Amino acid sequence: MYEISQKEYESRRERVRSELYRRGLDVLILFSPLRIFYLTGYHLLSTERPLAMIFPKDEDPIFYVPKLEEDHVKYRVPWVRRVFTYFEYPGTEHPLKRFVEVLKEEKIAEKRIGVDSDGYLGKYGYKGPALSELLGKEVKRVPEIVDDMRLVKSQEEISLLRESAKWCTLALRYLQEYSVPGTSEVEASMLASIDASSAMIRALGQATFAWIPPAKAYFRGQVGKLSYYPHMMYNNVLIKEGDVVIGEASAYVGGYSAELERTMIVGSPSEEQKKYFKAMIRAREEALKEYKPGNPCYAPNRAAFKVFREEGLLEMALHRTGHGIGLEGHEPPWIEEGDSTEMKPGMVFSCEPGIYVPGLGGFRHSDTVVITEDGAEMLTSYPTELEELIIR
Amino acid sequence: MYEISQKEYESRRERVRSELYRRGLDVLILFSPLRIFYLTGYHLLSTERPLAMIFPKDEDPIFYVPKLEEDHVKYRVPWVRRVFTYFEYPGTEHPLKRFVEVLKEEKIAEKRIGVDSDGYLGKYGYKGPALSELLGKEVKRVPEIVDDMRLVKSQEEISLLRESAKWCTLALRYLQEYSVPGTSEVEASMLASIDASSAMIRALGQATFAWIPPAKAYFRGQVGKLSYYPHMMYNNVLIKEGDVVIGEASAYVGGYSAELERTMIVGSPSEEQKKYFKAMIRAREEALKEYKPGNPCYAPNRAAFKVFREEGLLEMALHRTGHGIGLEGHEPPWIEEGDSTEMKPGMVFSCEPGIYVPGLGGFRHSDTVVITEDGAEMLTSYPTELEELIIR
Repeated sequence: MYEISQKEYESRRERVRSELYRRGLDVLILFSPLRIFYLTGYHLLSTERPLAMIFPKDEDPIFYVPKLEEDHVKYRVPWVRRVFTYFEYPGTEHPLKRFVEVLKEEKIAEKRIGVDSDGYLGKYGYKGPALSELLGKEVKRVPEIVDDMRLVKSQEEISLLRESAKWCTLALRYLQEYSVPGTSEVEASMLASIDASSAMIRALGQATFAWIPPAKAYFRGQVGKLSYYPHMMYNNVLIKEGDVVIGEASAYVGGYSAELERTMIVGSPSEEQKKYFKAMIRAREEALKEYKPGNPCYAPNRAAFKVFREEGLLEMALHRTGHGIGLEGHEPPWIEEGDSTEMKPGMVFSCEPGIYVPGLGGFRHSDTVVITEDGAEMLTSYPTELEELIIR
Repeated sequence: MYEISQKEYESRRERVRSELYRRGLDVLILFSPLRIFYLTGYHLLSTERPLAMIFPKDEDPIFYVPKLEEDHVKYRVPWVRRVFTYFEYPGTEHPLKRFVEVLKEEKIAEKRIGVDSDGYLGKYGYKGPALSELLGKEVKRVPEIVDDMRLVKSQEEISLLRESAKWCTLALRYLQEYSVPGTSEVEASMLASIDASSAMIRALGQATFAWIPPAKAYFRGQVGKLSYYPHMMYNNVLIKEGDVVIGEASAYVGGYSAELERTMIVGSPSEEQKKYFKAMIRAREEALKEYKPGNPCYAPNRAAFKVFREEGLLEMALHRTGHGIGLEGHEPPWIEEGDSTEMKPGMVFSCEPGIYVPGLGGFRHSDTVVITEDGAEMLTSYPTELEELIIR
């Protein structure tokens, strides 16, 4: 199956237990659906209804969820010890008050409590008190117990990212094929996404997805002059001859996605386009050499910016060279001047130095790279040279 | 154009100014991209990179954003007074430190400051200090200045929701057509979504979307027995004869989406299915009568639960009857026992009482309803009776 094994989820929980012992804590309370997913494989729809996993150091976790998730927890997490519920949000009594009663009944309130946040962080206009306030005592904020575990990926995680990378390639391939002049960028993106996703779900068999389409390729508005803005939004503009476009792809396999992006030219590239493309490629090549164990995370960034400086393009470099990636599209550590975290085998990063030329467009490839014992392996695969990135 | 007019954005900002005066505040600092969108129409990609809109009561707003958003702000918000930037996150100096320097340079630090949160709330592993800590003084948390404005929708907002509702109907219509026995739920959902979205972008012309497909219809795993779990995830199961399925639709027009959901039966309904469907319809009808100005928000919920009690189905009702809706899929106020907010003309809600039968499935329709001067208007439109909700 293309998902993290139960054995690995168990070993993740075992590591949490060790951390609780090491830190002198009795119990960890997690309010973040993503952190709960990381420890259980159970994907909860995140809404204004508060929920929590209560994880005592010597027992299996218990859950506190809205009534509508009660049997869903039991279905997805059959080993769960107990599920406590409240009926609804906002409720005649705030759900966190009932939560504190549960903590008291279970004799957890009196223990040394670690939390990932001091209360539910919420969404959709959720309002609620701090947990410490309701408990009348301090709780220790230790989101890093889970977050630090996520920094170095396991073999299973890397396998899922490798599998994801293949579907990223397929999705981006369709996008390149479908983006002929005259097509709307939204339409080309939707078509590429659905075709790649249809193939992926047939090939991978039954699976659970948090959203659909599970595989995607899209421009997000980075078409022609608008590709100058790295965080453009979908605009539904028509793709036309002479455009620089930046295509991006993702594909969620077992909750994980790689990142693959390519700058493409519609029709024959101009001399100007060739020049910037070439500079970006050189920055990318220099940066890639610096992804290796022992290096600080800023090393690839420095290498890329050295190239931009040499080429006189420093003003056009609008962002860092990369970020961690895994369960989320951006994760620490950061491939940036301010991050001196040591690269370790199993860390996974994007490599995406970019330059942005006003009135012309953006030039950025992105690949997903895993640090190995003696260097790095690129998980994503797609042609990088201009001749192969022409849309006709 | 299918978006909020500049005139309305201006009037929203005018209301913020009045609120600042009324509360004795000099400036409002907003960290939430959604609240910034509500006041400007500028949709920012929300990441770990902090950003803020600084809104002095007597001047036009200024922005503080990462370098890569600088020209994007100027492009999207041409009336912006000034844009301050930092290069990147995490940076050799934390971006919020530079932010506080900007507040000092602009002589804002010394003023009476309101904020929507005490610092950037972040995403993707963002870490950062509280603004009050860096400023060395209290800031007043006043998220309600914007959030309370969102409770009652304007005519423009209602028009966008009405337009959205049409595309919800089209998307759900395609979903009903495509969900023939043997089809994967994910595939049927993707096909319906792309077909509805293709039609929508052609009909509405150029527009900006935060995500694609802009119109969607899907089951989110609510197929057959699994529809018993209201917050199921996509499972890619095959739809089969005899299944109860719950189809949901949304369509983002100018940032706003209505909500439309229908319970459907694949093939000939069983007597048991008919019984529960009928009870749900009766609860829905009774609830709908209670959407009117002057009523407390719990009124429709009580009406629905009265029916469930009379039918002996109280145990099977797993959630409240509805929620506010607009820019977000769920918004306050809540159609729930604990919310006594008075319904006012312009408030928009879902109406979706549901019952869930273990081993059989879920029964829930959802519609979007706007409170009017003398009652309510249903914005969504789709057949409600079982005969018209059969999938063959």
